[in-house]
Amino acid sequence: MHCDRLWRNARLATLSRALPGLGEVDDGVVAARAGVIVYAGPSADAPPFEAEAAHDCEGRWITPGLIDPHTHLVFGGDRAHEFELRLAGASYEAIARAGGGIVSTMAATRAASQDELVDSALLRLDALIAEGATTVEVKSGYGLALEPELKSLRAARQLGRRRPVTIRTTFLGAHALPPEFAGDPDGYIHLVCREMIPAVAAEGLADAVDAFCEGIGFTAAQTRRVFEAARAHGLPVKLHAEQLSNLHGAALAAEFGALSADHLEHLDESGVAAMAAAGTVATLLPGAFYFVRETQAPPIAALRAAGVPLALATDCNPGTSPLTSLLLVMNMAATLFRMPVEECLAGVTREAACALGLGAQAGTLEAGKRCDLAIWDIERPAELVYRMGFNPLHARVFGGVG
Amino acid sequence: MHCDRLWRNARLATLSRALPGLGEVDDGVVAARAGVIVYAGPSADAPPFEAEAAHDCEGRWITPGLIDPHTHLVFGGDRAHEFELRLAGASYEAIARAGGGIVSTMAATRAASQDELVDSALLRLDALIAEGATTVEVKSGYGLALEPELKSLRAARQLGRRRPVTIRTTFLGAHALPPEFAGDPDGYIHLVCREMIPAVAAEGLADAVDAFCEGIGFTAAQTRRVFEAARAHGLPVKLHAEQLSNLHGAALAAEFGALSADHLEHLDESGVAAMAAAGTVATLLPGAFYFVRETQAPPIAALRAAGVPLALATDCNPGTSPLTSLLLVMNMAATLFRMPVEECLAGVTREAACALGLGAQAGTLEAGKRCDLAIWDIERPAELVYRMGFNPLHARVFGGVG
Ligand SMILES: [Zn+2]
Ligand SMILES: [Zn+2]
Repeated sequence: MHCDRLWRNARLATLSRALPGLGEVDDGVVAARAGVIVYAGPSADAPPFEAEAAHDCEGRWITPGLIDPHTHLVFGGDRAHEFELRLAGASYEAIARAGGGIVSTMAATRAASQDELVDSALLRLDALIAEGATTVEVKSGYGLALEPELKSLRAARQLGRRRPVTIRTTFLGAHALPPEFAGDPDGYIHLVCREMIPAVAAEGLADAVDAFCEGIGFTAAQTRRVFEAARAHGLPVKLHAEQLSNLHGAALAAEFGALSADHLEHLDESGVAAMAAAGTVATLLPGAFYFVRETQAPPIAALRAAGVPLALATDCNPGTSPLTSLLLVMNMAATLFRMPVEECLAGVTREAACALGLGAQAGTLEAGKRCDLAIWDIERPAELVYRMGFNPLHARVFGGVG
Repeated sequence: MHCDRLWRNARLATLSRALPGLGEVDDGVVAARAGVIVYAGPSADAPPFEAEAAHDCEGRWITPGLIDPHTHLVFGGDRAHEFELRLAGASYEAIARAGGGIVSTMAATRAASQDELVDSALLRLDALIAEGATTVEVKSGYGLALEPELKSLRAARQLGRRRPVTIRTTFLGAHALPPEFAGDPDGYIHLVCREMIPAVAAEGLADAVDAFCEGIGFTAAQTRRVFEAARAHGLPVKLHAEQLSNLHGAALAAEFGALSADHLEHLDESGVAAMAAAGTVATLLPGAFYFVRETQAPPIAALRAAGVPLALATDCNPGTSPLTSLLLVMNMAATLFRMPVEECLAGVTREAACALGLGAQAGTLEAGKRCDLAIWDIERPAELVYRMGFNPLHARVFGGVG
């Protein structure tokens, strides 16, 4: 059998649902043709391959390339000074008066050119890639007006042309209320639904639509309007839900067949049931949980019991999670949420792919999937979760190349 | 004035005690001769230099090279599997029966050759160096018998010959009770004092002596015997104190003029006062606090009020802090302990140097100190504390070279 590339003498964590646990294979082979896996499994069961290039992995572990299914990677400025002021005792009000908070990121994002947004996001993307990420979701949501939102999404699309990585873009116009609409959230939502979503859809700039359903964000009724507009334009939805309080956003998302509901610290049983029934993925964001010193963890046992898939993401953003390491995300999920190693690894591979609607193309080592691989200098997969601030990536393969 | 090397057009965080805050200099110059800083300050005040090599820093920030004053970098094996079992619900007893815990690290350390210990520690050291570390303390304490303790310290010394970094070694024979002495801790302490410390001192293998004073470690009376033996051999002491309970170890350490007392979650007011009177540095270990999910933070406000210097360290070790990032240590100190940016940066530079008895040689950008520099791609020092899993190091200079 002909193939372009072959990786042999490897241990595999295939993450195949057909196998128990991590789908581990001791003496494994991965073969790719035209960027797609044509075989991943035991060398004993492999057909005889004629490969253009064969790599001896010397017993190293191969996992699927890592997937970050929730980031706000594109933004102007940073919020390090606000962080410093808060540690020095400044109140949120004082910081807002000093021009801090999301409005400062909005202003810096509006002021930045598309190229500037791309360049600053590339630094963060490169940190993710250096740890084996091959697919990254990127949201807009700091422009908060038509043109800057389009600029942000174009910058996000541009990232995928500048680096060998799959970028999935999400329109998050309903992230926060811009100052121009102070006191008129319905007016802003009208703009999001009537102007922004149609323009985003017309230009093909977004793979999904997201909103921030929260006391400090938008109501469930406003979120519903956003979802209806998304549906009218054929775009799948996802939601920032139940992070700080329970507005029953996850159930609303499930009603619209959302790909994922994210955060979920304050999710209740009915929300869990709704997500399970709809097949909506729970994307947990332990970096934000850690950074804002949240104490209520998401109802992971209930989600697990209901069979809701658990994905993990960095939530990389300047305000509540300036985090660019999926390895650290796994450690935080294990340490702070007590998620076992298997769930942590599935969370940044197989389940993360589902959270992006890419379950058929990515997230496992199986024939038919894109050949996105992370090859690691480790003795067992648990090391990827256990260590903190250590990157054992040996090599990364994107679409069969690397 | 002649100098070997010059770094100009830089912003400096000198950490000089003579200046407020981080000792910031806007348009700064650092000049080095024979590996030592001969000038660090405003370019306007700099003497005219003739430099063999001049570097334009293009406005980047320079801090002192980072210092990790508490690590257990040299050990055999790892404990990723134990971590995995614990997440899966195994009890400490079950893990101990499965050969886990510190005894497993002891066995792997004893079984490893000195070269193997060096090679595995180099991976961890390289992670620290990649973030700008120029001085790292390394403890023994997993050999727990004469020869393996000597082997561990020789491996630690070897690290400093394999990489451009200052290694300070600490003998920690009194880390845990080896199985051979089960039920006879006094017998083991006798061995530590009568055989190990003299042998370590005779070979010049340690720069300090440490112990683990804790219910699961050694009593205050046993620690006192270790300290007396150290003093008899002219070695300064430091102590793992008040991590899990209050055995008044910090006060004992202060009585012996200890360089530092480390952990300190359960330190009381009298311990704070004793440390302040003795000039003993408090070395805080937020990585271990995070990893073991401790909830009681060290009494930082009381330490600060008493004028006790606050250092920060990774505590890199396989059981309770598999952490190899001083940037992450700063973020954890800020996030979990609410330490302001200034204290975090001083904790891994100026105060860390004092915790190692190197206050005169390292830790600040001042004439007379070793020219150990970290040059960063950042807009403000707070970024070093604020971000998670991102390394903005541009260049590292060790003893004027780099
Ligand atoms: Zn988010
Ligand atoms: Zn320690």
